[in-house]
Amino acid sequence: MSDKALSTESYKGVRDFYPEDMAVQRYIFDTWSKTAESFGFERYDASILEPSDLYKAKGAENEEMVNEQTYTFIDRGEREVTLRPEMTPTVARMVAGKRRELSLPVRWYSIPNLFRYERPQRGRLREHWQLNCDIFGADDFAADVEIIALAHQLLLDFGATSEMFRIRVNNRAALGAYLAEAGIESPEQVRAVSNVIDRKAKVSADEFAELMEAAAGRPLALPETMPEAVHHVIGGLIPLGINNVEYDPSIVRGFSYYTGTIFEIFDVSGENNRSMLGGGRYDNLTSMFGGDPLSGIGFGMGDVTMRDFLTTHKLLPENLAVTGPQVMIIPMETEFNIAGEVLASLLRRATSARIATDISTKKLGKKIGDASDRGVRFIIVVGEKEIGSQTYTIKDLRSGEETTGSLAIIESSINSR
Amino acid sequence: MSDKALSTESYKGVRDFYPEDMAVQRYIFDTWSKTAESFGFERYDASILEPSDLYKAKGAENEEMVNEQTYTFIDRGEREVTLRPEMTPTVARMVAGKRRELSLPVRWYSIPNLFRYERPQRGRLREHWQLNCDIFGADDFAADVEIIALAHQLLLDFGATSEMFRIRVNNRAALGAYLAEAGIESPEQVRAVSNVIDRKAKVSADEFAELMEAAAGRPLALPETMPEAVHHVIGGLIPLGINNVEYDPSIVRGFSYYTGTIFEIFDVSGENNRSMLGGGRYDNLTSMFGGDPLSGIGFGMGDVTMRDFLTTHKLLPENLAVTGPQVMIIPMETEFNIAGEVLASLLRRATSARIATDISTKKLGKKIGDASDRGVRFIIVVGEKEIGSQTYTIKDLRSGEETTGSLAIIESSINSR
Repeated sequence: MSDKALSTESYKGVRDFYPEDMAVQRYIFDTWSKTAESFGFERYDASILEPSDLYKAKGAENEEMVNEQTYTFIDRGEREVTLRPEMTPTVARMVAGKRRELSLPVRWYSIPNLFRYERPQRGRLREHWQLNCDIFGADDFAADVEIIALAHQLLLDFGATSEMFRIRVNNRAALGAYLAEAGIESPEQVRAVSNVIDRKAKVSADEFAELMEAAAGRPLALPETMPEAVHHVIGGLIPLGINNVEYDPSIVRGFSYYTGTIFEIFDVSGENNRSMLGGGRYDNLTSMFGGDPLSGIGFGMGDVTMRDFLTTHKLLPENLAVTGPQVMIIPMETEFNIAGEVLASLLRRATSARIATDISTKKLGKKIGDASDRGVRFIIVVGEKEIGSQTYTIKDLRSGEETTGSLAIIESSINSR
Repeated sequence: MSDKALSTESYKGVRDFYPEDMAVQRYIFDTWSKTAESFGFERYDASILEPSDLYKAKGAENEEMVNEQTYTFIDRGEREVTLRPEMTPTVARMVAGKRRELSLPVRWYSIPNLFRYERPQRGRLREHWQLNCDIFGADDFAADVEIIALAHQLLLDFGATSEMFRIRVNNRAALGAYLAEAGIESPEQVRAVSNVIDRKAKVSADEFAELMEAAAGRPLALPETMPEAVHHVIGGLIPLGINNVEYDPSIVRGFSYYTGTIFEIFDVSGENNRSMLGGGRYDNLTSMFGGDPLSGIGFGMGDVTMRDFLTTHKLLPENLAVTGPQVMIIPMETEFNIAGEVLASLLRRATSARIATDISTKKLGKKIGDASDRGVRFIIVVGEKEIGSQTYTIKDLRSGEETTGSLAIIESSINSR
């Protein structure tokens, strides 16, 4: 044992959730759940530990990603294990594993924590949480429309308006066809050009033209005509009342498994440059597990960008319920602590309030002050008189009002809050 | 990329939560939360990644535990990182980190996932989830009484009765004093004897006597007299109506940081031999972070043992709500899919039901059969006639009743369910 005091800091790049932060996190997660469930999505989960092969199987660029950007290690059984960097391979694995028992289309959501091993950067954490929503087994473009409608509704359900964000849509197959027509067909060259397109917003127009020429081997502009498939999806969103959507040929998405519609949502405030949410269609991800391919479409939405968006647009409720006590029972002296615990126990049976007893050794005045400081609504002081007479006084710290009476009177004071 | 199909199995020793299992998991977590919050406990969380020093700091036996029983690896910044095997060191770190800002006593709870690297054993998983409840800054035995009362209430809130489980209490300081009186004082010998006591239920009386003699260097029985401190705690539970509690000198708890009251809860059915829940008082865990020691008392309760208990006593509700759709809109043909999505969107605005659209390419009869099979309550078939007349028929699959009418009629059918 070392004599040096240990640091109270968390591990680099991850977060501690103290109750105030946890209340925000729960508000975000609960709102996500409610909206996803209103669309009939069912919640699933899996371990953060996955066999590394799950990420490597998609090709050489993924092998590189696994080796350089994930937490990967060898266990004592000589298995290579990775802390999941994304949820899509996991959900594809699970769907493939029960394919015959599932009634298609499957609509599933999850709120996993994900890990990326990156050099520290502003705003990029090593662990974050992400809402993942996927539909499997629906080839029709109505699934593309629905998944975008769900993403749109998620933001509305936090109080956002359509004016606060833009949905940008592209199509990977259409992009591939456009590149093929320009003679760019090898996976390496397609990837190189895609990477340049992905960086479009970060470079000047001249730089972009130069980079495109370097990657494509000739001057190459982005396509100007909206692909038929994108037109179709945007057209399907109109009758749903969703108009803040546009074709954006510069949307390419990082993951190589997308095959059709791809989309991202951006905050229009200019405060948050990254996309808040992104996803797309992948038509053959389950086939790596054998059997017939099964189409899927989904998206992921991170907690950090979500929180940034809510903060920028002042959409976070002011008094998010920390789950602390609403009623504090305050024993006058330590000798009345158990009597306080008994009273708390009785009140819990007759009310749904959150009730605690201040069993510290603080002085009475300090106990009352602390209860007030932490936002407790009611206090009940317990001493010899109260215990002897079975009569208590409850004080509403919000109104200042006091009520004295039997247990039944106290219960109804709390219940009528 | 390999041509061999990937396995759909999860990593060894962890679990996938398909929607049916997730529903059970959420029921357990939600019930845990509700009870802990009724006692005024506030929820916190932290990352599963912790610096390995957090676990090694407690002494040599912990260094061994970290090296042999945890997932520990070196990151690219040469930091040693561990997937947390328990939550107490994390919560001690967090409390120590904000000690000055916290109003004591602090009551916090969390539902973390924990990792142990063990050789596969029946019923012992490498990842499990655990409710952790702790009170910091309350030295009085009322905190010991309260934390046991909370553990008791947790089981009652799942529908258990006091007859289904026993609470067994001991005191680490009293055990230490008893051993010291018998000449056993070195940490190594205390640990050796404690390990034997811990195994008492697993060996015969003769074996136990032999093992005790070997560890203690002389014949040594367990203490027969209930320690004063245990008497005090049990006495405090009586006015709370908690009687299924007893002194058990064979309770020692594995973790070396306990200093006072220790307790475990056992299922009396005989089906589940392990303790379901265990905890105790630790008076100096925050001092490893510097500053003054701060007392704490808490417990942990695992999801696997909880589920086993609920199953054994038939306490799991039969129809745990999977979050699947309650209303299924069934387009007659794929061309009506978007019309189905529009209807779903309109109904979501006017009801709180979970509503999905079957946008698969299945035949109409198969779509209706699948909706019925998965427990959907209402179906609405949408075709040319419905779209043209804006008149829909909703069928209640439970009663067989059909209602035909405008959108407003359909909304009220759903709302009156």
